Amino acid sequence: MTATPLLYLQSGGPTAVLNASAQGAIEAARRLDLPLYAARDGLAGLVKGELVDTTRATDAEVARLSTLPGASFGVSRHMLPTWEEAPQEWLAVRDVLARHNIHHLLINGGNGSIGCAARLTEFEQHTGYPLRVIGIPKTIDNDLMGTDFSPGFPSAARFLATQMREVAVDMASMAQRRIFIMETMGRHTGWLAAGTAAAAQYVGDAPQVVLVPEMAFDADLFLKKVSQSLDERGHCAIAVAEGLEGPDGKPLAESHHDAVYGHEQLGGVGTWLAGLIKRELDMKSHVAQVDCPQRAARHLASAVDLRMAHQAGSTAVEWIVNTHQGVMTAFSRRPTVTPSWEVVPVPLADIGDRERRMPPEFVDADNLWVTPAFMDYMRPLLSGPAVVPWDEHGLPDCRPIEWANL
Amino acid sequence: MTATPLLYLQSGGPTAVLNASAQGAIEAARRLDLPLYAARDGLAGLVKGELVDTTRATDAEVARLSTLPGASFGVSRHMLPTWEEAPQEWLAVRDVLARHNIHHLLINGGNGSIGCAARLTEFEQHTGYPLRVIGIPKTIDNDLMGTDFSPGFPSAARFLATQMREVAVDMASMAQRRIFIMETMGRHTGWLAAGTAAAAQYVGDAPQVVLVPEMAFDADLFLKKVSQSLDERGHCAIAVAEGLEGPDGKPLAESHHDAVYGHEQLGGVGTWLAGLIKRELDMKSHVAQVDCPQRAARHLASAVDLRMAHQAGSTAVEWIVNTHQGVMTAFSRRPTVTPSWEVVPVPLADIGDRERRMPPEFVDADNLWVTPAFMDYMRPLLSGPAVVPWDEHGLPDCRPIEWANL
Repeated sequence: MTATPLLYLQSGGPTAVLNASAQGAIEAARRLDLPLYAARDGLAGLVKGELVDTTRATDAEVARLSTLPGASFGVSRHMLPTWEEAPQEWLAVRDVLARHNIHHLLINGGNGSIGCAARLTEFEQHTGYPLRVIGIPKTIDNDLMGTDFSPGFPSAARFLATQMREVAVDMASMAQRRIFIMETMGRHTGWLAAGTAAAAQYVGDAPQVVLVPEMAFDADLFLKKVSQSLDERGHCAIAVAEGLEGPDGKPLAESHHDAVYGHEQLGGVGTWLAGLIKRELDMKSHVAQVDCPQRAARHLASAVDLRMAHQAGSTAVEWIVNTHQGVMTAFSRRPTVTPSWEVVPVPLADIGDRERRMPPEFVDADNLWVTPAFMDYMRPLLSGPAVVPWDEHGLPDCRPIEWANL
Repeated sequence: MTATPLLYLQSGGPTAVLNASAQGAIEAARRLDLPLYAARDGLAGLVKGELVDTTRATDAEVARLSTLPGASFGVSRHMLPTWEEAPQEWLAVRDVLARHNIHHLLINGGNGSIGCAARLTEFEQHTGYPLRVIGIPKTIDNDLMGTDFSPGFPSAARFLATQMREVAVDMASMAQRRIFIMETMGRHTGWLAAGTAAAAQYVGDAPQVVLVPEMAFDADLFLKKVSQSLDERGHCAIAVAEGLEGPDGKPLAESHHDAVYGHEQLGGVGTWLAGLIKRELDMKSHVAQVDCPQRAARHLASAVDLRMAHQAGSTAVEWIVNTHQGVMTAFSRRPTVTPSWEVVPVPLADIGDRERRMPPEFVDADNLWVTPAFMDYMRPLLSGPAVVPWDEHGLPDCRPIEWANL
């Protein structure tokens, strides 16, 4: 009897370290002498049966995988509907799995994708086809339930905090009064905006103001803090999550809807704040809207994040074959100065498609900043620059890996 | 008789490698056994007599100087008016110089600052006080006349091109059609937007569209190129300089005026393009407005740029003492694959406060891209990652150097 192959897929938006999880999964499968296939374009490829065979990749290719940003196997935002909504999709998946004798499915994704994984734990019940499912966490937003941190977040935060610290030095160099606003991703949660606080070496360092959706925006308090920073040090750096909410709980800046993604695409709250400052303080602001680079910046990945991502992938393979199913490889934080964690199984059903907001003990709403407890949480995650394969032109070598179709 | 001290100052907006020029100047002065002072806050500090004594800094501090973004001695946008406009300022400067027996002035700056340096070559004529003046080029915009490239530009371009390449991989990972717009600095010139083209390894790679003020914006041609890229590869990455101009020669997006800087502060052309695409192609775009981080990103400085900046500073000291005055330490490019240049003296009067636009042979207006000649020009400048002093938290060590007041 030949070994049953595993199927791995990436789903949702890429992160800087998503491919490190793929690498971890592939390497673990090779150690266990199990074939690992992957779906192209995530769940969309699974439904269509577009699979690749990672066993045909060289060890050198697998080693290079974790140096690539993006999703090497492709991703989509396609989420599998419920059995009740679309039984034909479930049956199409069953046919694909049966054709290749696949009974182990690894889904590497964020909220929506882990929600799909949770649904798929009922696969045998609905389709009669035995399937073990496991989730591997991935999100720059750090908003997955059931895990203390998610691979992808530390690297994005390191990218933002590095820029925040460097801009702070630039601002302090200038004799003029200056305001800098950095708009980060974060539709409903402030983890990334808060992560820029790691740039501060001392209390009062940039960012002087951190605005997250977990605190209702108070314009008076905000303008007071900005004025105070201008008076004290001649400049003010502000980090703001795109989804900052007003007292009515609605995002302050909304752009058009995105029917494909099923989420509102926000953006522009940085410019909105600049307008407020212009009207009330008669000061211009510099606004950086960081956008996609924050989730693609593999060149600034944290070594800790890469290690976590790799471990999440390799542990998932070991568990699904030997011990656990229906769980996610979650991270339980050991509160120490050096980064330390345990990978623990958390039932997919307990995670679902809900957003984990910053807990109250991490948010200092009175001071528009983060708490010391958040700094203790955040700092160890950024440790260690990752190795970057610079090409002969001084840019990161991002040549894609060509996976062989199954 | 004691050696006559040199005076160095930084002026205008900082770059990622401005302090490497300061380091070059200080090290050269130490080799020549000459004291080097520096003005705080550029020309503003010179007028007020706020000077520091670099001879009291340790060798370790001087060695660390080139690892810091910003302007270690401080900068301002204060530009010395002409003698006719403000003789009292010139006489104030004369008093400061005379008090410290300074007869050698090194001005490290961009267009406006080099224009001031040019005016100051007439210092003795107007004030009766002998003064040798030299200019050291510095601008991320690469728009100084008389030099083939300016220190600061290669590092900013490397920062942008790195993000462009990584985002391209991220976009290619996604099954959905996607548009990414990166708005770079460049009020009147497109060097930085064009620099992102270095991200492309093959023809057709991102950025698929490069928009610079040196080409009048043609909406039809632009939309055709975007559609074509979407059809061919499912995504389109666009690099646009903030000062992109319409057929009337006026910037397409203007925000409020900045009375202090004396320049219009632009911004928002990326969002403007996204609106055009939404209306005409019914597609949403992701817009990154990079802003200040592109000039502060010391962590992505090119080693070539650091070397050029350092050499510009050290050569200026050697020249002003021994050979040249009234010139700028300009770069004459040797057209080779490896970065190669000569530092040549160019009279300050020939440079002035004019903007060097991209020459026609670098701009491919029909294809909304750059020419192969530009790629040959650009690529060698990015070579080599710079050493970054990462601190224990994984962020660049940016602790300022405390300079002793004179």
